[in-house]
Amino acid sequence: MKWQNELTDILRIQYPVVQAPMLGVTTPEMVAAISDQGGLGSLPLGGLSPDKTLSLIRRTKELTSKPFAVNLFTYDIPAINVEQASVMQDFLERLCTAHHLTFEKQAIDDFRFYSYLEQIDLVLSENIPIVSFTFGIPDDKIIEAFHSQGVTLIGTATCVREALILDQKGIDMIAVQGIEAGGHRGTFIADEPLPQIGTMSLVPEIARRLSRPVLAAGGIKDGRTVRASFALGAKAVQIGTAFIASHESAAILSYKAALQNASDRDSILTRAFSGRWARGLRNTLMTEVENSGLAIPPYPIQNSLTTLLRAVAQKADNKEFTNLWAGQSASGAETKPVAEIFQRIIRETEELA
Amino acid sequence: MKWQNELTDILRIQYPVVQAPMLGVTTPEMVAAISDQGGLGSLPLGGLSPDKTLSLIRRTKELTSKPFAVNLFTYDIPAINVEQASVMQDFLERLCTAHHLTFEKQAIDDFRFYSYLEQIDLVLSENIPIVSFTFGIPDDKIIEAFHSQGVTLIGTATCVREALILDQKGIDMIAVQGIEAGGHRGTFIADEPLPQIGTMSLVPEIARRLSRPVLAAGGIKDGRTVRASFALGAKAVQIGTAFIASHESAAILSYKAALQNASDRDSILTRAFSGRWARGLRNTLMTEVENSGLAIPPYPIQNSLTTLLRAVAQKADNKEFTNLWAGQSASGAETKPVAEIFQRIIRETEELA
Repeated sequence: MKWQNELTDILRIQYPVVQAPMLGVTTPEMVAAISDQGGLGSLPLGGLSPDKTLSLIRRTKELTSKPFAVNLFTYDIPAINVEQASVMQDFLERLCTAHHLTFEKQAIDDFRFYSYLEQIDLVLSENIPIVSFTFGIPDDKIIEAFHSQGVTLIGTATCVREALILDQKGIDMIAVQGIEAGGHRGTFIADEPLPQIGTMSLVPEIARRLSRPVLAAGGIKDGRTVRASFALGAKAVQIGTAFIASHESAAILSYKAALQNASDRDSILTRAFSGRWARGLRNTLMTEVENSGLAIPPYPIQNSLTTLLRAVAQKADNKEFTNLWAGQSASGAETKPVAEIFQRIIRETEELA
Repeated sequence: MKWQNELTDILRIQYPVVQAPMLGVTTPEMVAAISDQGGLGSLPLGGLSPDKTLSLIRRTKELTSKPFAVNLFTYDIPAINVEQASVMQDFLERLCTAHHLTFEKQAIDDFRFYSYLEQIDLVLSENIPIVSFTFGIPDDKIIEAFHSQGVTLIGTATCVREALILDQKGIDMIAVQGIEAGGHRGTFIADEPLPQIGTMSLVPEIARRLSRPVLAAGGIKDGRTVRASFALGAKAVQIGTAFIASHESAAILSYKAALQNASDRDSILTRAFSGRWARGLRNTLMTEVENSGLAIPPYPIQNSLTTLLRAVAQKADNKEFTNLWAGQSASGAETKPVAEIFQRIIRETEELA
């Protein structure tokens, strides 16, 4: 089994296995463990303050000397519709009261959203070699700034059209996100309906049309699915859900347990938690928000409206009121050190040779 | 490249490549061409009269001496809600008038639905070696009757739970239909929501849990996707959309052209044509029925309501008023003899070895 290819050469990694950036789940320890194993850890920084951005980068650097990627959310912050947000906030408050959960009501005018634009200088000055991004494309000047510093850029596409846009903008590698993938859909074209294309269709089509290396994401968790991804023309795989139950994950215990027992039909698409479509395990908050009939404010407004509530639920290990992002191959996620899960995937892939 | 495995041994075919049964598209000529090439042709007979069933089987036998499968729709016919059906029929009539299309109004009481139960004796007496089925499971006695005559049964699953039910019933092989697949979803468990699981997640999970051979369906069209399917643990692939533009296909010319130019986002799930969820290219009839806000009668009632309208559209090569079933890998479907398409897929798969 030959693992090296042009992607591993460019990224200076041993195995073309990328840990998906999972905000709220991924820790610096997870990133470092993956990179130390010879894969590529991805530190999720989407929407974080400059201070938090810096401290997470610094912490990860303390833990590993290997290259790792950071992930940014490259979207424009929309204007708040205060009335819509208030109606949703009132609903969430009533829901919490009914379920005996604390709801800290934050003044909507006090919401503070951080743009990725506030993170760019930091990421540049910290000499991060690989920057992946989701929800859009950085401005041309930012792409230039990264490229002039030798940074490799990885964009996220959920359909061919998005891949072609990223290609045209000179983005170096494309993470192709099939509908199986857990967490937020990276979709950035505005047209309805949401692209919902399976990995089996999407990866080979984008790999065929672009000369840039393609990373396959969605449904990948073991030797079989890694092998299949390479057969489809991917130069690397991006794996998320398989690491959520790991020791280094920030996921709460009840979330980890739910993943292990998940059936293939339990993870569904929802806008309930953040305002953006994402795949996760069905639970009470998801169902109640969807059944409320209320308009769900766009990302990141809905995300902010549910933030404190989710923090309260997480503290109580209450999986019914926080997001349980999970892909369609969630079942059997292992509660082990990240390194062991990574090594199992490598070993299984080699054994299938 | 070793093509033979336990599945090819049981089915007595050379290549584990099955042509998906596509009612309205598949002809006896297509079935015979695939079987003559060493694959397995599948003759779709779902919902057809005993007379039509017999004549199609006989015609296929005239064209090939190789084994082929027949496909049945194993569902129970629901009671008609005449008022609901009338409202839909009136809507379709107005729609046709607005678009200058003939609408032959058939008395709803005159609709004649054929159950698969009326086809069983015929299929048994014609000594068909392989019977696949969709939308459910035959009665235990029918399974017994087929098995006592040495017939191999292939069921269709769209989620793990369905695969486990088929396994428990003693069905010999499972066609696993990922969300990428074109045409009707084979789903037969009644629970909402519809399972929408990608091939990359569904095939390995079912292959892991069952000892029976698994056929992968959904997104498969070339060497890469065949290789990926085997990597996922499938013992065969089932390919449909790649044969729709073939010379032997009954698809109208405008449908074939639309397939070739389809993007990955053009095929969507709809109940508009038949009352069952199916994946096809968006067109006027689909959009108008969905936007009407009317309740869509269940299969096969909606199917009967649109039958004559679709026939009129097909006669006029009008792709806007007939079903354009297509998977998510539709683009580039070739207008060539089926044998050439089949050989290309085999050749590409071998070259990737």
